[in-house]
Parts: sequence; structure tokens; C-alpha cells
Amino acid sequence: MSGGKGSGGMAAQAGKLGVVASVAINLAALALYLRRRYSDDDGVGGRRREEGDELAVAPSSGKPPVSPDSIINLDHGDPTMYELFWRGDAGERATIVIPGWQTMSYFSDVGNICWFLEPRFEREVRRLHRLIGNAAAEGYHMLVGTGSTQLFQAAIYALSPPGAAAGAPMSVVSPVPYYSSYPAVTDFLKSDLYRWAGDANTFDGETYIELVCSPNNPDGGIREAVLKSGTCVAVHDLAYYWPQYTPITKAAAHDIMLFTVSKCTGHAGTRIGWALVKDRAVAQRMNKFIELNTIGVSKDSQLRAAKILKAISDGYEHAPAAGDRNRLFHFARRHMKARWGALRTAVAASGIFSLPDELPGYCTFAKETVAAYPPFAWLRCEKEGVDDLDGYLRERKIISRGGTKFGADGRFVRISMLDTDEAFAIFVDRLAAMK
Amino acid sequence: MSGGKGSGGMAAQAGKLGVVASVAINLAALALYLRRRYSDDDGVGGRRREEGDELAVAPSSGKPPVSPDSIINLDHGDPTMYELFWRGDAGERATIVIPGWQTMSYFSDVGNICWFLEPRFEREVRRLHRLIGNAAAEGYHMLVGTGSTQLFQAAIYALSPPGAAAGAPMSVVSPVPYYSSYPAVTDFLKSDLYRWAGDANTFDGETYIELVCSPNNPDGGIREAVLKSGTCVAVHDLAYYWPQYTPITKAAAHDIMLFTVSKCTGHAGTRIGWALVKDRAVAQRMNKFIELNTIGVSKDSQLRAAKILKAISDGYEHAPAAGDRNRLFHFARRHMKARWGALRTAVAASGIFSLPDELPGYCTFAKETVAAYPPFAWLRCEKEGVDDLDGYLRERKIISRGGTKFGADGRFVRISMLDTDEAFAIFVDRLAAMK
Repeated sequence: MSGGKGSGGMAAQAGKLGVVASVAINLAALALYLRRRYSDDDGVGGRRREEGDELAVAPSSGKPPVSPDSIINLDHGDPTMYELFWRGDAGERATIVIPGWQTMSYFSDVGNICWFLEPRFEREVRRLHRLIGNAAAEGYHMLVGTGSTQLFQAAIYALSPPGAAAGAPMSVVSPVPYYSSYPAVTDFLKSDLYRWAGDANTFDGETYIELVCSPNNPDGGIREAVLKSGTCVAVHDLAYYWPQYTPITKAAAHDIMLFTVSKCTGHAGTRIGWALVKDRAVAQRMNKFIELNTIGVSKDSQLRAAKILKAISDGYEHAPAAGDRNRLFHFARRHMKARWGALRTAVAASGIFSLPDELPGYCTFAKETVAAYPPFAWLRCEKEGVDDLDGYLRERKIISRGGTKFGADGRFVRISMLDTDEAFAIFVDRLAAMK
Repeated sequence: MSGGKGSGGMAAQAGKLGVVASVAINLAALALYLRRRYSDDDGVGGRRREEGDELAVAPSSGKPPVSPDSIINLDHGDPTMYELFWRGDAGERATIVIPGWQTMSYFSDVGNICWFLEPRFEREVRRLHRLIGNAAAEGYHMLVGTGSTQLFQAAIYALSPPGAAAGAPMSVVSPVPYYSSYPAVTDFLKSDLYRWAGDANTFDGETYIELVCSPNNPDGGIREAVLKSGTCVAVHDLAYYWPQYTPITKAAAHDIMLFTVSKCTGHAGTRIGWALVKDRAVAQRMNKFIELNTIGVSKDSQLRAAKILKAISDGYEHAPAAGDRNRLFHFARRHMKARWGALRTAVAASGIFSLPDELPGYCTFAKETVAAYPPFAWLRCEKEGVDDLDGYLRERKIISRGGTKFGADGRFVRISMLDTDEAFAIFVDRLAAMK
């Protein structure tokens, strides 16, 4: 599961943000800024200006730029930090051209369980796992999903056969603090097949599905399945098991593993995730979910994701090592390290917050001992009287996600570490000033 | 709802087809054929060959080519007929280039209810409706979906509020013969919010959702809502209300209208559909479904769809009228007319089948009286003893979809009229020979 989005209120908050921002910033100045920033591109093609195109909105974001007075929205894990990398040399190699006649059919590969999986995308995913060493893809069935959110639903569907439940829905659990979307996505259709049952540590049923997010969203913890019962099955959400966020310590080899392009490369807008599944029958049933839900997954985005992953692997295998320009994970790690440094400095300057400890480990990919730099900061307020940190920050024009949404208490919030440099810089400045 | 896919068994059938086809055709010859056919393109970029690329599978289809001995699969409405048009002049204008840095954010337009809707796509959809005159888009909220299948689910979710049902799921109905995916998609998650309740004509409840598909899948009939009760709400599936299939007689102006790129332009692989929704609260709740289900919709495919729709509108408004080369609906209508002509000739030659009558009407877009050429043939067998026409055709290596899946009897099958010229020609030849 991608792990970046809200369990609710995304549209409302985004809308509010847009309105407030457009009031806060002088509109003429904003239009001028955007026109200057994007005037070399046509917003779709990136090269050829088309007649009648309007350039007033950033095509890659849809969000207005920030200023020191702006509301800073770090609620969602919108990975716009990566845009800088993709505007460089590697981005040029990741450009995709799709002719009008291409990929018209529903089918991509009729011989595959996942008949809508583009072979080129599968090839680049397997190649990347071999390069990074973060997952054992050999011998696994691969599925593509519209983000890993869809694959998470496919997994709980596949693991909750209608007959097995005998009237009672399968329980779905995860240890607190758990990703805030798990409960909402599990329950929004009130399925008789499965039902959210809360904290894995306190759950006392016999048969259940455990969601294991590692590194964990929101707190970055490294997790193993609790698996208290022999009839429990685990779904591993490995959205953040990439070397910019955490030391790669071994090739994960769990029954169901979920990944997403969003948090690996920063391309959230493609809505592409993938699953590695050991059991053939489970893979077939997961595929059935996607068939019924959306009749497959955008081929354009699969082909684009293939091109992007290829550019990453090529950057390590073929390009000259000119700093980080061709090496995504090194680029992103450097940025994450700088951001975590700035955040810890701000927290120390403020004196009213605390953060989880930095966890170092030997990374088999980087071939050195490195610290973990999680994509979210799990921030706690130590100041007396602040029991709703989310509300406290909101009054100071910082939008975070409150701890109660993760099954934890209101002194915690989750902060995205992946937004633009501009937004992040304003955020840490404000944080440092809070006493 | 797109209307082309199966309620089940798609993967299994596709897999079987792949296996049989690869046995039936000499593999070396197949590889050679494909290499020749696609050797000018790289399968992703269409222009630049990349090192290490393999060209053994057609990138636009994933299906092996057919030969006179092949199994012909006309089960799914796979709109590969359109490829010919997009390989021409118009296709050149529909080519899209997406740079590596583009559309990385989750957001497209933070001020919109549908915050993941690319403004460019919305603009081209509204422009196309104005050009064709098939729907009143002014004053409607627009949503984008991963195919109209996702929007269909969003609609029944939005119309089944958890409180209103008071324990009982909302009933979802449609008049027989109904699109075969409606029951499966409604029921696969066993939601407590809604439940499939069968034929709208025989249903006797008070509160329900009626699915109105017009022109109807599978039989091409022009439909109005049955709406037997004042507390019934209708969802209009207008996937086929385009001038190549039916005379455009008025601008539809229903509460919820669903469309899909698949059946309009032939780009099924993009998985892009859209909804026009009158009521703001319903649009918000539909959007919430898509947020929770897939956190938005592929931006790459939205931008590509925008480019494709723009090429279509430009073909009518700006390009010289050089035959059909720039006029999609004229091209497609000519092909549909030829195919229906060939099919009716084959049915007459055989003598054991019947088809629905041809329905002419005045088309406000074509500005003349034209016949309807539905995307599916609803074929009936009149021969004594053939009660399972699907099985009968399957023995003759034609895969159709049996009438029972549409709530009708087994003497009917649905046949896709949108496959490749090669597959369609083999199909009519075989049909004509059945006595």
C-alpha cells in the first residue's frame, strides 16, 4: 500500500488548501511565477508547445507554490521531493513517447496469470529487485495494481474466501501505530468478507490477516509479523523498503509483498504498484479482484514506470558515477539525510518535541553502515497541555496527520518528509520557533 | 461501465487461448511475423529502438495474431478495430511525450471535487461532448475513473449511504438482457451497502438503483429507465452512445452518466472513463470511493486520453476532410457498417441464426438518417436442439459470451464486433458455413 494518503478528507483538505493559498498569495504574482517556471514546456509533451494550451497550473503537481505565509500541507506523503532528480540527466532518459495506436487492447500478456501486466514493466521490476537486493522476486508471481492500495484490497480479498468465513468476516489487524488508511480502506464497502479489527497486539481471535508495514508508516519501525496464531496470514507492505529510507539488510521473502512506484521513484501520479506473491492460487484470486474492480491497470503508466525503473537501473549499471545525478537512491538518501538533520536541529531548537531514535544498520546495497531516514516523521509533543498536536500545528498553518488516526494518541502527528524543498524549509523554520 | 469485459474467467480464458494459439501456430513463424510487423518501433517509444528490447509480443495487444485455424475470441469487447485509424495521420497527432519529471504528485487540481482530474482531460471531454452533442456536460461535475467500471462502483457506493439502508443493502437492478458484469461487479465484495437484485422488470421492491445501459450491452437496444418507483435512482451507462454505433438523437441529461474512452476511441488499455454528475454531494461521495479504492487515477493515461480526444476534435474542426483519415467517428461508422453487412450476409447464408433488426434514426451529429451498428451482435440460434449456442460455437473454435450471463437464455450469445479485421473475417466465414 502506498502509505501516503489519507483515510478521508483528502479532497476537502486539498480544496481548503487551494482556496486559502489562492487568497494568501497575490494571484497575479502566482500566475507570473508559474508562467515563468513552466514556459519552456507545454505541460503534456514537455517539448512542443501546442496552440491554445494554458500554462497557469504546474502540470506535475496541481498544487500552488508555497510562500513563508502559506499553509504547509504535510498530511499526505506526496513525493514531490523527487522532481529535482527527474529534471536532471536521468529524467531525460526516462522520457516516454507513446504513439496514438499503441496499447489499445485490454490485454498485455495472455499467457500470464496477470494478463494485463506489461512484460516490459515486469522485467524492469525484477531487474531492480536484483540490483537493490531488497526482495527475492525469483519464483514469485508478479501482479500490477493501480497503486499498491488496490493490491492491498486484492490481497485481503484473496485471503478471505467466501466459504471459509462461514458467515463471519475475516479479521484484518495491524500493530499500533498502523497506517491510517488500513481501517478506512478495509471497511468502506462494509464487505462481509473481511472487517477491520484493530491492533494486532491486543487482538485475541484465532484466524486473521495481519498487515505488516516495514519500515512502518507512520513511525519508521522495522517490523516482523506478530503472528500469534497458526491460522494467521501476513501481508507485507514494503512500500518503504528502499535504500534511501532504511538500510537494506536482507532480501525479503514473504508470501505476499507489496511495493509501489510512488515511494520508490516519486511518481505517485502514475498510480502503479506491484505485488510479489508466492502462491499461485492467491495470485489468481488477487488478479480476479483487479479484473472485477478496474479490468486491469493503465498500460500507459506501466510502460512509463518501466522506462523510469530502467533509467534507475541503467544509472547504476551503465552511467558514469557523476555524483548523484544518475543514482536515484543516492540522490534521495542525501536529501533525506539533510532533511532529517534539519528536522532534528529544529526539534532541538524548539525544545517541546521529540522524535524516534535514529536506527543505523549495515546496508547490503550501499555496502556501508547507514542510518534510517524514514519518509515520515512521527513527531511527539512533550509540552504540557498539548494533547491534540494536530490541532496545535494546524493553528500554526501546518497540516499534519494526527496520531489518533494511527491508533495512537493525540500527542503524536505524522509529518511527510517527501514534499518540496520549499515547503519543507518553511516547515522546519516554523517548528524551530515553537516554544 | 465499459461493457466489454467478462464477469469472470477472463484470465482463465485468456490463458487458455494463449496456450492453444501457441500450439496451433508455428512459434517460429509467429515470432518472424511479429518481428516484421513491429520492427520499426520499439514498443514503448514508437520511434527509438532501445538496446536489449525484445519485439516478440505485439506491444499494443499482447494477443497472438489469428490464422484461419485459430480460436477466434469475440468474448470481450476488445476494441482493436480502431488501431488502423490511429496508425494513420490522426495517430501522429495523438502521440504523447511525457518527460521523466512530470505528473509526480498525487494531485492534479486541488480546487476541484475530483482533485486528481487533469484539467486538460476535463477540457477535452467537455469539448468532445459539445462537438458530438451526445450529452449535456454544462453544469455537471466531472469525475475521472480507472475505466467506467470503477465509476459504476463509485456510483452505486454513492447512492447507497450506510445510514439510509438501515441494515438492508440497497438493491441494484437492470432490465434483462443486462450487461453480464453488472451482477459480478456489484456482488464480488459482498458489500452490506448494495446487492444485485436482477431484472428491473420483475423486481418488486420500493427503493433501488436502476442501471440503464443505452445503447444496451448486449443487444444494442435504446433504453429509458423503467423507474417503477419514486424512490428509485438511475445510473446511465452511456459507453456506446457515440455516432459510430447509434444515431445521436439528443443530448443526454441524466443525473449520473458514465462514459469510457475504450468504446469511444478504442483505447481500452488506458483504463480511462469519466462520469458527469448533476448533484454535488453525489459527486463528492463518488470521488471518495475512488480516493479509497485507488487514490486517484493514472495521470499519464489522463494526459494521453486528453491528447487523443484533442486529435479527434481537431480532426473535425481543423483538419482537411480527406476522407475518413482525420474523422474517427466516420471511419468507425464505415467499418461498423461493413461488418454488420458482412455479418447479416453470413447469417442469411447460414440460415440457422437471427439478429436484432436494424434501427434507423436521424443523427444530429451526422445530420442524416443512419442505421444503428451496435458494438456487439446479439446472435440467436434458430436451429432445433441448439440450446447452448455458446458451447455450439466453442466447438467450432469461436468464443462468444453465452446468453445466460446476461439473464437471457442459452440460445443467445453476444459477439464482439470490435476485434481486428482479420479475426472478424474468419468469424463471418465460419458462421456462414454453419447449417
